[in-house]
Amino acid sequence: MTSTKKRLKVHFTPDNVDITVPQGENLLKAALAAGVHINAACGGNGVCGTCKVLIKKGEVTGPRSEKISPEEYEQGYRLSCQSRIESDLSVEVPLESRLETAVLGREMGTAEAKTEETVATGWSFNPPLNKCYVEITPPTLKDNASDLSRLLRSLKRRCNLSNVSVDLDVVKDLSRVQRKKGGQVTVTTLVKAVKTKSDKRKPTIIKVESGNTSREHYSLAFDIGTTTICGQLLDLNRGRVVAESMAYNGQISYGADVITRIARSQQPGGLKKLQQAVVATINQIIDELVARSRIKVEHIGHMIVAGNTTMTHILLGLDPKYIRLSPYTPVANFLPPVRARSLGIGVGKHVHLFTFPCVASYVGGDIVSGVVGVGLHQSPKLTLYMDIGTNGEIVVGDSDWMITAACSAGPAFEGGGIKHGMIAAAGAIQDVTIDPVSLEPEVSTIGGEKPKGICGSGLINIIAALLEAGAIGQNGKFNTELKSQRIRRGGDGYEYLLSKESETQTGKDIVITEVDIDNLIRAKAAMYAGCRTLLSSVGISLSALEQVIIAGAFGSHIDIERSITIGLLPDIPRDRFIFVGNGSLTGARLTSFSTDLLDDARKVAIMMTNLELSERADFMDSYIAALFLPHTNAAEFPAAAKRLAGLKGSGPEGRPVL
Amino acid sequence: MTSTKKRLKVHFTPDNVDITVPQGENLLKAALAAGVHINAACGGNGVCGTCKVLIKKGEVTGPRSEKISPEEYEQGYRLSCQSRIESDLSVEVPLESRLETAVLGREMGTAEAKTEETVATGWSFNPPLNKCYVEITPPTLKDNASDLSRLLRSLKRRCNLSNVSVDLDVVKDLSRVQRKKGGQVTVTTLVKAVKTKSDKRKPTIIKVESGNTSREHYSLAFDIGTTTICGQLLDLNRGRVVAESMAYNGQISYGADVITRIARSQQPGGLKKLQQAVVATINQIIDELVARSRIKVEHIGHMIVAGNTTMTHILLGLDPKYIRLSPYTPVANFLPPVRARSLGIGVGKHVHLFTFPCVASYVGGDIVSGVVGVGLHQSPKLTLYMDIGTNGEIVVGDSDWMITAACSAGPAFEGGGIKHGMIAAAGAIQDVTIDPVSLEPEVSTIGGEKPKGICGSGLINIIAALLEAGAIGQNGKFNTELKSQRIRRGGDGYEYLLSKESETQTGKDIVITEVDIDNLIRAKAAMYAGCRTLLSSVGISLSALEQVIIAGAFGSHIDIERSITIGLLPDIPRDRFIFVGNGSLTGARLTSFSTDLLDDARKVAIMMTNLELSERADFMDSYIAALFLPHTNAAEFPAAAKRLAGLKGSGPEGRPVL
Repeated sequence: MTSTKKRLKVHFTPDNVDITVPQGENLLKAALAAGVHINAACGGNGVCGTCKVLIKKGEVTGPRSEKISPEEYEQGYRLSCQSRIESDLSVEVPLESRLETAVLGREMGTAEAKTEETVATGWSFNPPLNKCYVEITPPTLKDNASDLSRLLRSLKRRCNLSNVSVDLDVVKDLSRVQRKKGGQVTVTTLVKAVKTKSDKRKPTIIKVESGNTSREHYSLAFDIGTTTICGQLLDLNRGRVVAESMAYNGQISYGADVITRIARSQQPGGLKKLQQAVVATINQIIDELVARSRIKVEHIGHMIVAGNTTMTHILLGLDPKYIRLSPYTPVANFLPPVRARSLGIGVGKHVHLFTFPCVASYVGGDIVSGVVGVGLHQSPKLTLYMDIGTNGEIVVGDSDWMITAACSAGPAFEGGGIKHGMIAAAGAIQDVTIDPVSLEPEVSTIGGEKPKGICGSGLINIIAALLEAGAIGQNGKFNTELKSQRIRRGGDGYEYLLSKESETQTGKDIVITEVDIDNLIRAKAAMYAGCRTLLSSVGISLSALEQVIIAGAFGSHIDIERSITIGLLPDIPRDRFIFVGNGSLTGARLTSFSTDLLDDARKVAIMMTNLELSERADFMDSYIAALFLPHTNAAEFPAAAKRLAGLKGSGPEGRPVL
Repeated sequence: MTSTKKRLKVHFTPDNVDITVPQGENLLKAALAAGVHINAACGGNGVCGTCKVLIKKGEVTGPRSEKISPEEYEQGYRLSCQSRIESDLSVEVPLESRLETAVLGREMGTAEAKTEETVATGWSFNPPLNKCYVEITPPTLKDNASDLSRLLRSLKRRCNLSNVSVDLDVVKDLSRVQRKKGGQVTVTTLVKAVKTKSDKRKPTIIKVESGNTSREHYSLAFDIGTTTICGQLLDLNRGRVVAESMAYNGQISYGADVITRIARSQQPGGLKKLQQAVVATINQIIDELVARSRIKVEHIGHMIVAGNTTMTHILLGLDPKYIRLSPYTPVANFLPPVRARSLGIGVGKHVHLFTFPCVASYVGGDIVSGVVGVGLHQSPKLTLYMDIGTNGEIVVGDSDWMITAACSAGPAFEGGGIKHGMIAAAGAIQDVTIDPVSLEPEVSTIGGEKPKGICGSGLINIIAALLEAGAIGQNGKFNTELKSQRIRRGGDGYEYLLSKESETQTGKDIVITEVDIDNLIRAKAAMYAGCRTLLSSVGISLSALEQVIIAGAFGSHIDIERSITIGLLPDIPRDRFIFVGNGSLTGARLTSFSTDLLDDARKVAIMMTNLELSERADFMDSYIAALFLPHTNAAEFPAAAKRLAGLKGSGPEGRPVL
């Protein structure tokens, strides 16, 4: 920018925030700089259309996008990522373009509880963070050992802790703290390193407080997802969740998926911006956890974080460049714990942040955490673990072996790439029944609010319902011969009207399009083909699976029968399926409670063999065969096929056009 | 200070430095703030007289000191620590009040070399810092392990290094560095923790450079003394010293001994100032080592530092408060390695600083380092190790056991508390012969320069010579009946004129006073009584000692026969004495070459039993008995007594007045 450029003022509503920028500045950049979070799923490349804004006053220039209809264009809608600011502006960010964190208040408790009861069992309660109250004998001329020596002796006598090391920061305050209340201190120790074969555990003293503070003993467990971040505040004395909170990952403004984010990280200063964005979200969640629980942030002593490989890299400031370039190498899978505060996280300086080890570029710490959380590594049963998130990862194995793969399912299951898609938050359509005769829908939303969009589980249910009602065929195309106003032609081809503008929060029709359906078919085909390929690589059939554990942001909401109907889940006895919700968060929590499980995480990551599906010729065959509802080979879904056939009006009988 | 105070300008010569300060500011403080280093042995309490300056223009106020003679006062001499600035000033800092580092150019090589040859032998060359050049196989889709995994695999194959951990800083650059020269990298590993019984060694990767830099492989060894700091730049490929340098510890401006420094550290900001002062000196030495050797500072990969307990505390920023308060507890004796740069030391950010473990408040890492350096812990011989520095520490034992004590000898052996005392630098009188008839002296100085003062070894030699010539009696008092212009009455009582003003650098007479002699007698009595007490605590006689190892800044310069004559060293067969010079620096160097010795340091520190002499009733008896030249009990020094008796004119026969 040169000094001759005019300075222009941009006003954003409903945030009521102003920012002054040079003429010609990109509008999305200006919004980010002003702290206004606009959804920008494609990372600002003008292809996704999610960053739509309404220019209420002033002038912008830029290419016209097909994502803006002529009518919208007339009203003043523009893609913020494609707009150059040419005058003072007043800009409204419409509901559907906003990242709202307040709506993420849904309950997670039930599914979580079930997990612990039904799956992970083989662990004892021994948190890596430990607090111990000791009374140190004052020094005498006969015994004038150093302050630290006397502390270590007391720690050994009172808490049976030996082989202890100490952080220098602790030593700096030791004399003062130790004398403040006549030798009464509370010592916080942390097992930083995991135990390997030949080693004894070595706790490190990370904090010494005067007096007895052993009752205040908390830690944080986080799942850092590409789309959402979930955090729990844990009471390490009682072994339970004190508070829990969730927010959109602030990185969404830089792209919806890891590939876009990695691309963004390669721009000058990009990695730092992405790192700051995720840290800002983490801090926001911590603030909320602390406010809700009325626990002082200084009583939090530890953080365990599970994230996919890219999220882990960015959080720690590692360059993710080669994750997206063949042959897809992460910088590192096993990373040492870091001081949380060195990353900008607003906790005490003694707090260390542990990240789950990753397995490969697309099988990350979230999967390792999930596997540990559900106890797969302790199970004698042959198990398929599926994590259905922005990406899809699968694991097959038992306590003796594990093989894993990433499916490149894309973000459809979290509402990404779907015209009216959104994450599983209040106002999201999560279920529908469609009258087989009139084709009229009855939708239900999360929180019972007016509809705002469609979440991943809603998408599965809608497509299954359309299929069962005969509104679409097994190839995912609409039966246009049916007489219904609900099926119509829209901007993206045929679409089904779920909610009319008068009934929605956005004031616009909510539809599902053939393009959306196609996106979901591709996503479910990738997941299913991934499972098939992984199993066949080890010579195991789907029917041999003794249990199928399904994790993911929507894992506790999807309907098993309908998921089989569309061919996402295999057609095996229904009692073999277990839903665990956010398995990754469960793992982060349980390892906060059990050092044994923390050790296990390392073993699991080492134990897992990663299969690159792109290297397997049979994956593409399986994938193409799965691009049908439920599958081109009806024999693979006998129960589903039978059920579909038995339903009245099961639509156009046209064979799939592949 | 209030805003109404006048701002005054102070000009210092010969530095030619100006500073502006408020009216009433202390002159010593102003000099420190201006970067003018003035000797202030007592820490600014007006009792030592070493901070004398000449006010050439302007006015100061303050109490009159007995350390300034009426004649000097007339000329404008004042104690800077006692002077308030009342007008613009021009201040000359005379030679004797200055801390000059340039004069410290004396050779240390000879004594050092002897040490390694004759004492420490039981170690192999395996530095804790290691460099290894590896060529990493590029990733493929069949083998797309993380960059770090591939690095670790290469390291294991090529350098047989396993069980390796890694600093996060290294991981951050790994992708880039590893690809820069096609997988050719040089890996620097460090064994951070010492090996304990059950553990394998765990090297940590602290740096990865692209290309082959294994030829550039250096580290630093430091001895941080209360008075002087010595540093060596070591070539870890060849196992030798590349350069060596020495400077006054910048903390001298805050007091001559550890007690004064600890007192100073308790003032607001005091600890930080002292820490910065020692770091500034370290940086100055590093600059000089780097300049002399033409080695790039970034090729230095490690630092090992030996210092007494107080020096170690201050360097690391630990509060030394309780070191000087009974029952004399350090904060900690065993400290984790720290990043040198976090202390302000000007080396690469990957450089860790290891400090030798201490034993007690007055037996520090310098003694542990010395014991390891001379191989006492490997020796079957019953050994007495004496470190004669600003304080005196002694160790008795062999490879199976060790007992240690600190003697509170005071700074006399380093020239402290002596009217014309100075450290062993160029211009210091280090030897003298006195004609037994005329009592005329012939002095020799370090570097052959004109005399400037008296160093510790000079003091021993002068007192022995005065005793042998009969100029003083065995009680240390002058024989005033002798006819000699050399013995005269001065401001501090009787004194002996060593060099006339016309012959000296300072343009003033250099004398030794009865007070000086008394100070030395007290110091040597403390050392000797310490040895006696320590030995008797374990039931061992002096004659049972198989070797006596003498370390200290002047250790390689003192005359053994004369040291026995004055009763500093025991009267045992002369061939049992070994001089090792700076044993502490030797230990720091050898542990830089040998991880085994680094492990030994920990064992030695644990093995040493500290005896508090102040707790022993017999120490005071021994001390009082030793306040005589050589001793009140002539039977303890049979050879010395015989020799003294045989000398012509062995002075006044008055029995000592105790």
